[in-house]
Amino acid sequence: MTTTLYGAIEAGGTKFRCVVARGIEEVLAEVRVPTTTPEATLAQVTAFFADASARLGTVSALGIATFGPVDLDRRSPSFGRILATPKAGWSNTDLVGTLLRQLGRPVAIDTDVNASARAEFERGYDAGVINSLVYVTVGTGIGGGAVIDGRTVKGLLHPEMGHVQVRRDSRDAQFEGICPFHGDCLEGLASGPAILARWGAPLSALAPEHIAHAVIGGYLGQLACSVTLLLSPQRIVFGGGVMDDTRLLQEIRTRASALLGGYLPHERLPAGLETYITAPTLGTRSGLMGALLLARDAAREDRLGGLGSPETVSER
Amino acid sequence: MTTTLYGAIEAGGTKFRCVVARGIEEVLAEVRVPTTTPEATLAQVTAFFADASARLGTVSALGIATFGPVDLDRRSPSFGRILATPKAGWSNTDLVGTLLRQLGRPVAIDTDVNASARAEFERGYDAGVINSLVYVTVGTGIGGGAVIDGRTVKGLLHPEMGHVQVRRDSRDAQFEGICPFHGDCLEGLASGPAILARWGAPLSALAPEHIAHAVIGGYLGQLACSVTLLLSPQRIVFGGGVMDDTRLLQEIRTRASALLGGYLPHERLPAGLETYITAPTLGTRSGLMGALLLARDAAREDRLGGLGSPETVSER
Repeated sequence: MTTTLYGAIEAGGTKFRCVVARGIEEVLAEVRVPTTTPEATLAQVTAFFADASARLGTVSALGIATFGPVDLDRRSPSFGRILATPKAGWSNTDLVGTLLRQLGRPVAIDTDVNASARAEFERGYDAGVINSLVYVTVGTGIGGGAVIDGRTVKGLLHPEMGHVQVRRDSRDAQFEGICPFHGDCLEGLASGPAILARWGAPLSALAPEHIAHAVIGGYLGQLACSVTLLLSPQRIVFGGGVMDDTRLLQEIRTRASALLGGYLPHERLPAGLETYITAPTLGTRSGLMGALLLARDAAREDRLGGLGSPETVSER
Repeated sequence: MTTTLYGAIEAGGTKFRCVVARGIEEVLAEVRVPTTTPEATLAQVTAFFADASARLGTVSALGIATFGPVDLDRRSPSFGRILATPKAGWSNTDLVGTLLRQLGRPVAIDTDVNASARAEFERGYDAGVINSLVYVTVGTGIGGGAVIDGRTVKGLLHPEMGHVQVRRDSRDAQFEGICPFHGDCLEGLASGPAILARWGAPLSALAPEHIAHAVIGGYLGQLACSVTLLLSPQRIVFGGGVMDDTRLLQEIRTRASALLGGYLPHERLPAGLETYITAPTLGTRSGLMGALLLARDAAREDRLGGLGSPETVSER
């Protein structure tokens, strides 16, 4: 049994979930801080960790799974900062620097969806069997993260799958979309607020025969199809609040399969589409688990004494 | 100076280009074999390598960069075979097995576009600086390959980017598309034959003010946008015969940039879009260079005596 303590933050647009855990499984303290201004939110976050440290002992490292866009390039002067975002006041917020200064422990960071993808990849039902996985969250926004050959994808920035263009459903042609950047990109059409904007209720509250189910399932099925054709992952996991609609996952499968036509390699899917397009094994805990895995990375690198992975920094 | 001989095949839908080279740069013999039936084509291919071996010496290994879909999973019973394809007679053709039996040398295989991506990644103008790259070919068909963290992407199958859905241009709404699987997927709309089907000439022969340039640039710009949002590569290279139209690359840049809106991280592109969406450094040689790099992999693994990478097989 490890006795190492880890701190983890899942930084979202409406709340910051923070935990202190023994190892990556045993949560000892948890708090949810509303996302208001960077100053107020980060003050509450650091207060939580300071208090937890006083009661439970010092955390060995901190992992952050954050909303994006965020600079994940260690060599960049803005590493660890939120980039230009429509979230009022948050552009250029120095997440990593602030927490590093306040807590004095090593910090590792990735996007919330990359962290969730990694958690599902390492802790999901067939961890160790697959080598790639895409995680999509459909909630207040839409985002996607990816693990390829065991590592999360960063590259020029990091995946921002929610803003992909989809072909419009003719039954939904009048709606302009709500994305401030792109209007009717996927997030502008199929996120929770976009569903509310034109139908006045979440999917799960609309009648089974309401066209919203097929329309939204179709848009998300297009994403699953594009992900398959561009990334060829071994699994696509759909999480987030909009997925609480119990029939949506099957709609996505049906639509993606129809769009892929002969290009879905069924012979590689012995148990069929249900194992390819799936719900999160970890439920709503993927993001926090991903942040804990990041904390464990940072602690290991700190012990090894090297700068190590490009996602981790520590003051020495 | 290496004196090692490598064999390489770029297996395409209209021709198989075969070379024997000293090292990966010095081509000693080359032939183009028309793609007819698997039996006739592969007989000519193996005859070329047998003849070249007699004249030049035995090749240490063979690399194949092939059209897809192809099974790249070493653990699969159909490894090295072409999967279901509209190319008459080619479904289930055992490329790797046939060449392994005929030539008795180790064989490595990848898709043509993955091989091209790798060649541009390792031999392109800023090799060693980037860690990810997407290569798209626009010709008889449309395909895309990817290098992420230095390795080509395989996963469940391999990328099949040409069959992604794009939003239709209203100026092009009447055309049904020519993809036998998906009708008006990207390949069905923007490949060379799709351009010929509705405008009767290649892009480069149409007047500068013809809408075809903007329509096709728009469709390919959508792909560049989707690639950016889903894969976040550090470079996207567009090759293939349709790209001979000298203004198409700029059309793609313009359209992708407009679609990405605020989500293209311009600060990471010091020299602008021209270094992000580019022509191949290796011109039309990317595929063959990729096949030579695969041959070098196979030869190295053969010397090391291990089964090594999942893409390489050898008879012992």
